[in-house]
Amino acid sequence: MAEQAWQATVLTLFPGMFPGPLGESLAGKSLKEGIWALKTLDIRQFARDKHRTVDDVPLGGGVGMVLKPDVVAAALDHVADAPGPRIYLTPRGRVLDQPLVRELAAADGAVFLCGRYEGVDQRVIDLAGMMEVSIGDFILSGGEVAALTIMDSVVRLLPGVIGKEASHHEESFETGLLEPSLYTHPRNWNGIEAPEILASGHHGRIAEWRAGEARRETRKRRPDLWERYLRAQAQENEAKE
Amino acid sequence: MAEQAWQATVLTLFPGMFPGPLGESLAGKSLKEGIWALKTLDIRQFARDKHRTVDDVPLGGGVGMVLKPDVVAAALDHVADAPGPRIYLTPRGRVLDQPLVRELAAADGAVFLCGRYEGVDQRVIDLAGMMEVSIGDFILSGGEVAALTIMDSVVRLLPGVIGKEASHHEESFETGLLEPSLYTHPRNWNGIEAPEILASGHHGRIAEWRAGEARRETRKRRPDLWERYLRAQAQENEAKE
Repeated sequence: MAEQAWQATVLTLFPGMFPGPLGESLAGKSLKEGIWALKTLDIRQFARDKHRTVDDVPLGGGVGMVLKPDVVAAALDHVADAPGPRIYLTPRGRVLDQPLVRELAAADGAVFLCGRYEGVDQRVIDLAGMMEVSIGDFILSGGEVAALTIMDSVVRLLPGVIGKEASHHEESFETGLLEPSLYTHPRNWNGIEAPEILASGHHGRIAEWRAGEARRETRKRRPDLWERYLRAQAQENEAKE
Repeated sequence: MAEQAWQATVLTLFPGMFPGPLGESLAGKSLKEGIWALKTLDIRQFARDKHRTVDDVPLGGGVGMVLKPDVVAAALDHVADAPGPRIYLTPRGRVLDQPLVRELAAADGAVFLCGRYEGVDQRVIDLAGMMEVSIGDFILSGGEVAALTIMDSVVRLLPGVIGKEASHHEESFETGLLEPSLYTHPRNWNGIEAPEILASGHHGRIAEWRAGEARRETRKRRPDLWERYLRAQAQENEAKE
């Protein structure tokens, strides 16, 4: 059975930024294999005047420029048949996390609208009912790097991209905790021993140590995640009773 | 007075991913102008055996591979003179936010260590006292896209990259709030009016409306940010009394 490729459609003023880093390694290999597909469209081609104007000054004044609603609407219309949710990359959006990545990977694809300058006229975002997504509480020069980030996180979840299903399981956020610390050979490196238990050969005790390490590191590094984890555990226990 | 370029140094198994999207637009222009500089080093060149092995199995078992501490240490030694903090991109790290971006932009540069496979042996990270940074609670296929994200957010803050200083001020997170919604011409687009106040010409009332909009949108979209903002305001008021 031939699976349909996961279809990324990107609306951008800088189509040359794609696939960029995703042309290599895991993402690049799976792109060549047809596990996912990438289509970029230059927003400028939807400008309607001879100067190919895509932006205008903010209503009410202020610095910077705003992408025009008519131009963006024409671009969105043009990709009306593209599969998946319409995502506008904006620092005002829902913050990307692993559950959202999984949700996107389970869809047939996604359409990414990359803002530039100050952003996009809010009317077209609202009218199109776009999903507004932020990759974090920091400002980028445009939506392109954010779109690449989301695609990278989605693509590695697509069937056939990472060989061993298992390598998703113990990873940070899939369990609600950070991963335990990693060690490899040599056991004694530069006078520093890796934790002794890891050389014990006792799989059960190693698993126990790693689970403890994941809890300790999460509590120390990310009190916010740790609190959420405890609440989720408490709810699970209540549900069992 | 010639300012020193902000120096990004990247240790990666995929040097071809750089500058990637940062070769265009604002970041690309300022790279060509020498406002920042980019040096990539292939971690593989620090492998010591004839197979150029950079990774090994995790101690204690498990799937995936771990970057070897000796190889990573040799790569870090090689860039000992590179300016700025040593950053290891990992989902276990401090979560990137705008204050951290500003901190990095104020340094002379940064060294980015991009993990691949499962990650890097923790001993070399600890021994080098690296700053562990995460761009968010999701999993990428490697640290490269995260490094590009950080560089994009840092570069736009460097002096001379964005013309008008003012365009940093009203942005999301710089005030602790999300930005107000943006609108541009036409005032009536597709039957939808932009908020009337924006065409009033009353600068004071427009500023007031935008401040209210920033508060309303933050409360609605990001209750977590809103709570933090209220706490910060309360502390500020206490300090004044």
